[in-house]
Amino acid sequence: MRRNENRFRRNVQADAEQIFGIQAEHTEEVADQKVRTAFYPIGQSTLEYLESTDPEGPIGKFLEKRGPGIHHIAFEVDDVDAAVKELLAKGVRMIDKEPRKGAHGNRIAFIHPAETGGVLIEICQPSGEQH
Amino acid sequence: MRRNENRFRRNVQADAEQIFGIQAEHTEEVADQKVRTAFYPIGQSTLEYLESTDPEGPIGKFLEKRGPGIHHIAFEVDDVDAAVKELLAKGVRMIDKEPRKGAHGNRIAFIHPAETGGVLIEICQPSGEQH
Repeated sequence: MRRNENRFRRNVQADAEQIFGIQAEHTEEVADQKVRTAFYPIGQSTLEYLESTDPEGPIGKFLEKRGPGIHHIAFEVDDVDAAVKELLAKGVRMIDKEPRKGAHGNRIAFIHPAETGGVLIEICQPSGEQH
Repeated sequence: MRRNENRFRRNVQADAEQIFGIQAEHTEEVADQKVRTAFYPIGQSTLEYLESTDPEGPIGKFLEKRGPGIHHIAFEVDDVDAAVKELLAKGVRMIDKEPRKGAHGNRIAFIHPAETGGVLIEICQPSGEQH
């Protein structure tokens, strides 16, 4: 069952490559998030595919509960520490009260989805690492 | 109940403006889709808020079934007629086998979400109309 779920995820990604004629620019396993990621730049934005590497990880649990779909939207900020402080000062409920490390060495923080109509939103400060 | 649902939708949008410090660049009612839209450009992408104007419309039904959340992702193409033909030739199941008119006078077509892991994807050719 879990094996099938992973196979299905891979097919969603392979289907997207075939449908849209796109190729991943970068792939990476983020061990502490228990995901494999694949990045498809489009204009100034990037589509990020996530594949669970562990059913107990956050993406594994999301897939178990809701099936495949859009997990989150990320917005780039210049200074994620300042952005988190600003959001907390506004009384916005945060999943991460301190930024933590994401893919690409980026520093990230998630806003609690109850603040944004159930949509999970990440703010993200790029590390400047080469892909 | 429906009145409350609309009020909730307005609050999601108002919350986003307050949380992120953004203002709509353009608002528009799309009568045949039974929605009011508000556009927030971010980089080369745009966040589009949708508010149902009729519980029997596509967004009204989405809200009734799933509650607030991400409705779809749109990708800009240069030639939506050619893109729809290319997708149909690849055997991709389309909601719209012919492009139709969306907000801003854009011409749009939706891919069936069964093709893309349950995510509803629109392809969109800008009309070039001024906002």
